[in-house]
Amino acid sequence: MGLFSKDIQTMDDLFMHTLRDIYYAEKQVKKALPKMAKKAVDPALKAGFETHLEETKGHIERLDQVFTLMGVKPKGVTCDAIDGILKEAESVMAEVSDEHVLDAAMVAAAQAVEHYEITRYGTLSTWATEMGRPDVATLLKQTLAEEEATDKKLSKLAKGHVNQAAAA
Amino acid sequence: MGLFSKDIQTMDDLFMHTLRDIYYAEKQVKKALPKMAKKAVDPALKAGFETHLEETKGHIERLDQVFTLMGVKPKGVTCDAIDGILKEAESVMAEVSDEHVLDAAMVAAAQAVEHYEITRYGTLSTWATEMGRPDVATLLKQTLAEEEATDKKLSKLAKGHVNQAAAA
Repeated sequence: MGLFSKDIQTMDDLFMHTLRDIYYAEKQVKKALPKMAKKAVDPALKAGFETHLEETKGHIERLDQVFTLMGVKPKGVTCDAIDGILKEAESVMAEVSDEHVLDAAMVAAAQAVEHYEITRYGTLSTWATEMGRPDVATLLKQTLAEEEATDKKLSKLAKGHVNQAAAA
Repeated sequence: MGLFSKDIQTMDDLFMHTLRDIYYAEKQVKKALPKMAKKAVDPALKAGFETHLEETKGHIERLDQVFTLMGVKPKGVTCDAIDGILKEAESVMAEVSDEHVLDAAMVAAAQAVEHYEITRYGTLSTWATEMGRPDVATLLKQTLAEEEATDKKLSKLAKGHVNQAAAA
């Protein structure tokens, strides 16, 4: 971005900026998930993080396709939001002494990540539709549905046994 | 938080840490909303930000009540997540030259804030219920419902006219 100019002039510019933002975010999430999977003691939670890592790789590939459809080279832009969400997750994780309480903390952290992705994919898919790009909107909506499903799975896992183990 | 000790040992500790996190977050949102209301050109969006500012003041008061019910003094703790989300919002807003595109960017930024609050209030209300504190859970669920309603209102506003004006 320019120091002396305003680089976002049109909705196309805003779409492209936000696309680059979520591209960077997905790559940071891809780096964070293996650490969370390693620390999780609940087997279902560990498996959930591993499955979501594979899904995240798929989301990055889908974003590569979106960039190609838009005729531009895939490129990320620093996303302060995801950096903040992951920094907070790491600092809370570092403060927890009990491994079951850590599981509960990691579910909460992962849901904060999911909600960030849900809002960005929701916005981007709406904009793509309005820009007359249903091909792009379809790809973005596929990822949106997967992020929403992951958030619901995490809620179910927390209420099912993670929180009970943490409170025991 | 201690430099040499892990301060979160139980679910009660984790709940209290997360409560302090959202308390700080709401106060930062309270500071950001007047700036967004001032910059909005769409009258409905401007009014929406002003209404949400009043709601946010109510959410802070409700959190004060939760702290009182838990028998502790209200206190915030730096929330890197909301700091990141708001930093990103400000930097994108600074990059946009067209006032209608800025409206669309601000709706997206506000929805990222809402989603962060939704995930935190969702987690906290679940934990409160599981900790046997339905009184606390009820207050947190009231705010959760308001944040979800605000997110839906923002989507409707964007699809209704903000995005069309931005694309014109």
